[in-house]
Amino acid sequence: MAAARASGLVLSRPVTFVTGNAKKLEEVRAILGQTIPFQSLKLDLPELQGEPEDISKEKARLAAAQVNGPVLVEDTCLCFNSLKGLPGPYIKWFLQKIGHEGLNNLLMAYEDKSAYALCVFSFAVGPDSEPITFSGKTQGKIVLPRGPNDFGWDPIFQPDGYNQTYAEMPKEEKNKISHRSKSLALVKSHFAEVGYTFQINNV
Amino acid sequence: MAAARASGLVLSRPVTFVTGNAKKLEEVRAILGQTIPFQSLKLDLPELQGEPEDISKEKARLAAAQVNGPVLVEDTCLCFNSLKGLPGPYIKWFLQKIGHEGLNNLLMAYEDKSAYALCVFSFAVGPDSEPITFSGKTQGKIVLPRGPNDFGWDPIFQPDGYNQTYAEMPKEEKNKISHRSKSLALVKSHFAEVGYTFQINNV
Repeated sequence: MAAARASGLVLSRPVTFVTGNAKKLEEVRAILGQTIPFQSLKLDLPELQGEPEDISKEKARLAAAQVNGPVLVEDTCLCFNSLKGLPGPYIKWFLQKIGHEGLNNLLMAYEDKSAYALCVFSFAVGPDSEPITFSGKTQGKIVLPRGPNDFGWDPIFQPDGYNQTYAEMPKEEKNKISHRSKSLALVKSHFAEVGYTFQINNV
Repeated sequence: MAAARASGLVLSRPVTFVTGNAKKLEEVRAILGQTIPFQSLKLDLPELQGEPEDISKEKARLAAAQVNGPVLVEDTCLCFNSLKGLPGPYIKWFLQKIGHEGLNNLLMAYEDKSAYALCVFSFAVGPDSEPITFSGKTQGKIVLPRGPNDFGWDPIFQPDGYNQTYAEMPKEEKNKISHRSKSLALVKSHFAEVGYTFQINNV
């Protein structure tokens, strides 16, 4: 198999997707389908402060060192344009502490309620390789919560061109346009381009 | 010297205070005086997300491993009560991106403009010892900027019982009541209590 794809890199293990979030895993499975053999693993990695791409790269480095094999890590940001991209990578803490209403309140002083959802995946082949980063963005605006409240800030993000929030949309519809699917499309392209070959039994 | 303080721990090196911020260093020097022999060092440490005390402890661990000796690290948070303690440890990014006016704007939706300044010092004797944490808090409120704009968010924080902002107050006055001085007072007490003895030449 490897001989047939001379330019490709041979990976002897499936990619470990690092997450402890069942909803994220579900989306990633739905979007990736069978294109990339992966397994999921919850790891206790330190979460850094900084710019989204830097945070993600460093996470991939730490994960690859722990897993000692190919890893895929993911970070999600919700970026308010009036706040120059914040809360951004800190959205988790803001959601946890002030909730959907509090997040709306942060924009009270501003006419501009526009925001973008940002998903950053980083892939590292192993502990000694520089991670590669893939960023997907979906533009929208922050609205009062509508729809099921079972996945983070989905109820307050309404993507441009839609009158439903992420939470109100059917999953298949969301997965077509979401920041996560755009980022994963780049991951898929990268895998196709490099031509990684998996020599794995039972995948 | 060590014999005279049988219960005390002997440190063969001055404490390394990790900072790259000249203004912080100046305050720490003014507050500590000659009580604890220390030198300052700028280290490139990862900044974590999380609760202030956890962030500080982890930073002390990483610093002690790099310095291989006693270290003191410091973190400052500006915590808005209406936002349940946020921006908190992320204040640096908020200040950098949205400035004093943007920080005021975050509270537009709320009557309650109260906030507290939080300073967390952590001290680690060395790479193998558990860091000890000291938190100092000063209550106040967020106001439109007043006073010199040369030290972070000092112009928008007015401590309770004063009609001047941190920035407007004489340094000696600020150092009497600040979150940093309260935290350092706890550090000093700890040093006095444990009776660390420094066997250092030329300090």
